[in-house]
Amino acid sequence: MPQLLDAIQQRFACRAFHPDRPLTATQLALLCEAGRLAPSAFGLEPWRFIPVTDAAPRARIAGACFDQPAATSAAAFIVIVALVAALDPDSDYVRARFEAEARGGEVAPIDAAYRALCRDTPLAAWAQGQCHFAAAQMLLQATHMGLGSCPIGGFDAAALAQSLSLAPGEVPALVIALGQCAEPAPARIRKPLE
Amino acid sequence: MPQLLDAIQQRFACRAFHPDRPLTATQLALLCEAGRLAPSAFGLEPWRFIPVTDAAPRARIAGACFDQPAATSAAAFIVIVALVAALDPDSDYVRARFEAEARGGEVAPIDAAYRALCRDTPLAAWAQGQCHFAAAQMLLQATHMGLGSCPIGGFDAAALAQSLSLAPGEVPALVIALGQCAEPAPARIRKPLE
Repeated sequence: MPQLLDAIQQRFACRAFHPDRPLTATQLALLCEAGRLAPSAFGLEPWRFIPVTDAAPRARIAGACFDQPAATSAAAFIVIVALVAALDPDSDYVRARFEAEARGGEVAPIDAAYRALCRDTPLAAWAQGQCHFAAAQMLLQATHMGLGSCPIGGFDAAALAQSLSLAPGEVPALVIALGQCAEPAPARIRKPLE
Repeated sequence: MPQLLDAIQQRFACRAFHPDRPLTATQLALLCEAGRLAPSAFGLEPWRFIPVTDAAPRARIAGACFDQPAATSAAAFIVIVALVAALDPDSDYVRARFEAEARGGEVAPIDAAYRALCRDTPLAAWAQGQCHFAAAQMLLQATHMGLGSCPIGGFDAAALAQSLSLAPGEVPALVIALGQCAEPAPARIRKPLE
């Protein structure tokens, strides 16, 4: 593989897409696959990915993102939802993930470590943070496929949850706007390596 | 570039490294560069990366990670530290990042959106979650360079902060153990794509 840093360097937050150039089903599936294979603490994979391509639901998502240009011009979205309620240490979801993670070994030490985390940590913010592992892989995959992308963390969470009919305890973590980019890459801003 | 998904598929949490095969300075620099170029909300880049390669400090890091095998066998670490105190909305750090992010435009809307976030969000957990953008890029970069890696989120934060002489308000977010992997990739566990 040529330098992965090429994709890392080429990725930027695109603020203007061609809204009339749709993504293919294959592209959306590859993006979700890139997210699905991301690491997560305790192997909990505390996320769900919701692709949105039709015009009417796209407009509702854009509205929940305060109609910022990256959202109103996006050809598609993938909304990453954090499965906060499922993370209750006594849930069937957690039990099933720990049994998979233990690979036939003991579940008890994983369970104990997780309960210690739950005592010290605000779980909703923690789960949303875990979703960034999946998001980062999706953003690089989009760049790799020649697509523009923009991670949007500024949204009306209640409006977004309603427009996606999220269950209670499912919390939007990040909206990824996608499409063919209609603007040049801006000059990159970063702190120096030191 | 061949399929980025190759790197995504090949990455796994290595639990046993060859401790006597050090990373080169170039490898460590490329890993930090992959993290440096990661996206972050509001362009805040709320992180600092600390490479650790010498035997004595490596042993202290491993101890803070409860001497789990991935830590005791690692040839090097990069500790990602969340700059929590710097995220105060009135800090010089935030002001400087917003001026860069605004690219000569208005800082006020960014500032207002960020203050709204600060009212609703536990900032330490939020900053640690932002660090996962950088971590994900580093983990893929390690895979790309033929290195094994293991993200470690389970550590004694106070012991880690002391061994790294962190300033108050700097909070360890994630320890990345690195080295030549000394075990085969395990069978992958993931929820199905649905």
